[in-house]
Amino acid sequence: MPRYRLTVAYDGTNFHGWQKQCASEGPAQESLRTVQGVLEQAIVDVVRERVSVQGASRTDAGVHAIGQVAAFNCQMEMAPDRLAPAINSRLPDDAQVRSASIIHEGFSPITDAIAKGYRYRIAHGRKGPPPAGLPPLFSRHTTFWTPYRLDPVRMNEAARHLVGEHDFTSFTRKNHGRESPIRTIFDCTVTATGRQRCRLEVCGDGFLHNMVRIIVGTLVEVGRGRIDPDALGDILAAADRTAAGPTLPPQGLCLMWVQYENVAEAARPA
Amino acid sequence: MPRYRLTVAYDGTNFHGWQKQCASEGPAQESLRTVQGVLEQAIVDVVRERVSVQGASRTDAGVHAIGQVAAFNCQMEMAPDRLAPAINSRLPDDAQVRSASIIHEGFSPITDAIAKGYRYRIAHGRKGPPPAGLPPLFSRHTTFWTPYRLDPVRMNEAARHLVGEHDFTSFTRKNHGRESPIRTIFDCTVTATGRQRCRLEVCGDGFLHNMVRIIVGTLVEVGRGRIDPDALGDILAAADRTAAGPTLPPQGLCLMWVQYENVAEAARPA
Repeated sequence: MPRYRLTVAYDGTNFHGWQKQCASEGPAQESLRTVQGVLEQAIVDVVRERVSVQGASRTDAGVHAIGQVAAFNCQMEMAPDRLAPAINSRLPDDAQVRSASIIHEGFSPITDAIAKGYRYRIAHGRKGPPPAGLPPLFSRHTTFWTPYRLDPVRMNEAARHLVGEHDFTSFTRKNHGRESPIRTIFDCTVTATGRQRCRLEVCGDGFLHNMVRIIVGTLVEVGRGRIDPDALGDILAAADRTAAGPTLPPQGLCLMWVQYENVAEAARPA
Repeated sequence: MPRYRLTVAYDGTNFHGWQKQCASEGPAQESLRTVQGVLEQAIVDVVRERVSVQGASRTDAGVHAIGQVAAFNCQMEMAPDRLAPAINSRLPDDAQVRSASIIHEGFSPITDAIAKGYRYRIAHGRKGPPPAGLPPLFSRHTTFWTPYRLDPVRMNEAARHLVGEHDFTSFTRKNHGRESPIRTIFDCTVTATGRQRCRLEVCGDGFLHNMVRIIVGTLVEVGRGRIDPDALGDILAAADRTAAGPTLPPQGLCLMWVQYENVAEAARPA
């Protein structure tokens, strides 16, 4: 039975995240609209058999992806270059299969991943008295906005402290389960992308729940001048969620790529 | 009674156009969500009196604006730099007042306009065999997509023929009313903005209904090689809607600025 690997992009705005789930509220157990759900349905419409799609990262509601990696088995054999257009013709306009290939049957998009890269986009206020500017209009679903003036150079200084192997307990939800809080960050960079725009790019061997959104929430505090860049070491050492900054909202976050065995699974922004 | 002038930006995706209207279908005469409607409501919430807002251009459903100009009278006197933030705090996140000023009481945003500028964004397929690429994901509400490979240089050649004073009957709906079909186009340019992206920028003293969307629909036919660039003169001369190309969908279109008495009312893209 062949196993297929897909690179999937989606605008997370109107999805309840990646993972299939049932609404916990309401009279009937209606299923919520998730990326995994619409992708499985589109694949079933193509291959005419039940499939179970696994994704590399269970992105939260509102989080986007350009290079999510998914895999599934099915009886039907199909040329990968015909599979992607066939699935796309059945997907809604906020999800796309960017590429498809045949992969060995033991491939797990979750446990075989050796690195993941995320981006977080920020728009911020200008120097001087209020009004500090306006939130972005056309990119409001892909960018976090703060009215405060941020200093991206200072944020980048702070970001360097996160590179390496650390206990990231300060940068995840309390009660994040029994898994180890140790992760290795390979790179963490803040770059100004305009006069009132900047972005965080971070990659590592794995991320705890909400980890990128708490990292960037802490870096925004640094950018506003409320945390010193050199305090990041102490915040890590505290191993205490309350030592770090707030969890920023999901819309700025995008899963850019997932890497397997040194073959980058990357895609360019749309 | 002071008269205020506003520069207004909106993401037209979830609006039934600029102008207030009632749903023609359905049991009750429910009002549709329009930019004029939400803007008037936000202003009423600020000034605590009934106002009537006029806009320079009655943009269609799905069409965006960065530099729409609107005006209204009210009893309340308010510093313009306080008015814009006050209105913005009551607007939904898909509409914004970018600036406010006090204007002479005879000002009409419609009849005093001497020029308007529009932009139309296009994404297109790549050279070679299909698949020709994928439609844009994150900019799908602000960009028209065609799977065909376009030649922006050829499109720009054709666009030059439209500059000047012409009868634009070929480039508007039939039965466009009794108004004159003569308009003057000051500039009309197609520019490649990426390997598979281009945009039309057009400005003139006024535009007939659907005129920009039919112009760009005709230029796309030129870009695909189905109409010769030099045929544009004949299409104008025909004064016949069927001589021109299709009306492209609204989402690529954005009203960029409206000019009054040689003072450009312009705003930069968000």
